[in-house]
Amino acid sequence: MDKLIQHKDLESFVEKVFNAIGCSEVHAKQATKTLLDADLRGIDSHGVARLSGYIRLWEVQRINAVPKIKIVHETPSTAVVDGDSGLGLVVAPHAMSIAVEKAKNVGTGWVSVCNSNHFGIAASHAMLALKEDMIGMVMTNASALVAPTFSKERMLGTNPICVAVPAGEEPPFIADLATTTAANGKLEILQRKGADAPLGWIQDQEGNPIQNAHALKEGGALLPLGGDRDHGSHKGYALGAIVDIFSGILSGANFGPWVPPFPAYVPMPENLPGKGIGHFFGAMRIDAFRKSEDFKKDMDLWIRRFKAAKPINDEQPVIIPGDPERQYQKEREKNGIPLVESVWNDLQAISQKFNIKL
Amino acid sequence: MDKLIQHKDLESFVEKVFNAIGCSEVHAKQATKTLLDADLRGIDSHGVARLSGYIRLWEVQRINAVPKIKIVHETPSTAVVDGDSGLGLVVAPHAMSIAVEKAKNVGTGWVSVCNSNHFGIAASHAMLALKEDMIGMVMTNASALVAPTFSKERMLGTNPICVAVPAGEEPPFIADLATTTAANGKLEILQRKGADAPLGWIQDQEGNPIQNAHALKEGGALLPLGGDRDHGSHKGYALGAIVDIFSGILSGANFGPWVPPFPAYVPMPENLPGKGIGHFFGAMRIDAFRKSEDFKKDMDLWIRRFKAAKPINDEQPVIIPGDPERQYQKEREKNGIPLVESVWNDLQAISQKFNIKL
Repeated sequence: MDKLIQHKDLESFVEKVFNAIGCSEVHAKQATKTLLDADLRGIDSHGVARLSGYIRLWEVQRINAVPKIKIVHETPSTAVVDGDSGLGLVVAPHAMSIAVEKAKNVGTGWVSVCNSNHFGIAASHAMLALKEDMIGMVMTNASALVAPTFSKERMLGTNPICVAVPAGEEPPFIADLATTTAANGKLEILQRKGADAPLGWIQDQEGNPIQNAHALKEGGALLPLGGDRDHGSHKGYALGAIVDIFSGILSGANFGPWVPPFPAYVPMPENLPGKGIGHFFGAMRIDAFRKSEDFKKDMDLWIRRFKAAKPINDEQPVIIPGDPERQYQKEREKNGIPLVESVWNDLQAISQKFNIKL
Repeated sequence: MDKLIQHKDLESFVEKVFNAIGCSEVHAKQATKTLLDADLRGIDSHGVARLSGYIRLWEVQRINAVPKIKIVHETPSTAVVDGDSGLGLVVAPHAMSIAVEKAKNVGTGWVSVCNSNHFGIAASHAMLALKEDMIGMVMTNASALVAPTFSKERMLGTNPICVAVPAGEEPPFIADLATTTAANGKLEILQRKGADAPLGWIQDQEGNPIQNAHALKEGGALLPLGGDRDHGSHKGYALGAIVDIFSGILSGANFGPWVPPFPAYVPMPENLPGKGIGHFFGAMRIDAFRKSEDFKKDMDLWIRRFKAAKPINDEQPVIIPGDPERQYQKEREKNGIPLVESVWNDLQAISQKFNIKL
């Protein structure tokens, strides 16, 4: 049975935990906001469920709680940022703010980041651009769980792409997608239920299609969006590769099979070509292209027209990217955030370790 | 039996045809290069097979052979370009050159284009950035053939995304992908063969999965990359939507179901919200992020490591995006371009109409 907890209570607890590992007030608030954004938006795999993982990375000194995040190279519209092994939850909003500043000056800003760690959900950072009347774009690489088309080797992370676009009267368009058929969090849900995965999500260690949701733990791999060659998995692989190049290679971070793993107990890959994991951030000022009112009027029209597209089944209209997460947020802000038992136990253990009341 | 024709002969013919409809020398050369790039790279659906279609659009005055392409708004890193109803084959390289110039000045350049027409293959334009030591990015919207997840209505084009990335000793990484399970050209091949399509490519007019490759002509729709909800079609739909917004809404072009159709005999949609079809171009200078040598060394490492990823089947190694097209190009530059009978007949008809020897 899930435990329901009010988001304000969870927020206060998480913030104190980040303070306890040495984060500054500002950083603790930022990191907490990013984690809570995930829980509120229904992306349970990327919220407080990961708090114990971040702490373990801090314990083995792979996360620096007091990073000096700095720009190592820049032009009017670009920068490379070194995250100094900080929490990605903190490095990411910092880098996004640099992209936004550059966009204010020259229309757009593009920031590639090295030496960072897992940054939570991409949408949390992309949405920072919205209040500036900008389009936000966010990518990150991640440790290898995905086999390219024709391979049985894990070479890419689930490498998400997020694009957030402001609208006028309608809420913003926010697409946040792993470049795999299914994100790892979806697989974890099936694992907990003991249910099978649809074909096309995973393969076993020999590269055979398989439905066992635990195949990943037995040397299998997630599959690129498309699932197999006939259904365009080479496109999902290419998209994941683009994310890897923009995040890892433009910045001097690690890439491909060398991206450091999230679980602290998994050994680091050998012969690392770069530093930490990589992210990529973009901000485009709407009025660098068109009058903002005109753009938003058209975005409203786009959203309304797509919502009105003829449904296959009258009970399931077309969904605008971002709508389901907003629905979760509304519901969870009111009723609380449901935590599965294992996450609740994790938080209890953290509570005892740091003597912070939950 | 396919007819083989030397690419230089085809080039010379196509250039004269563009001259005959009134294109300037420069524009005729550009348009020809873009079409031939498709035929050489094995993308037969986007090469000279479309020449008769462009001419019909010119005949009904939807294509202006002497466009005054102009910048209607700009900042140091952005521009909106009005293509003046020109051939997309000509408008696109012009817009890309503006993106490249902006990148020279401020690190990156981003150009959204309205009032254009079909621009051939995206890769042809993205590759223009490579020789400037830049990453090239190209998108375009297109007339609606694709149903969003849960819909039976055609709302999006096959809306491709292309990213071209320079490497060092290795050839460049060039990913050029429709945001659908399969591009329309792949379906046309099956139609000619009288073969069925795999499930997940198309649906019938009621939204049922179907394998009949002719379903599109009977009111059916192409499916977004992923194929169905379980396999992530909402991600393919979101990617197609992003392309539509960047190409159509940032520029003031048409978008969604209002994008003008390619076949001249199909009536224009009513109540158009914008002008023509839209494209989006980006250029990022490598050295706006990192020393070009360092970046290229890492790209070479990326490419070699992915080529060496453990294959499922020893006879089919992992493919680097761009490699198959380069293979086609090598082979076709040597042996000629194969044309199916219907395309050959089309070209013969054009030859007679304009009195240009083929």
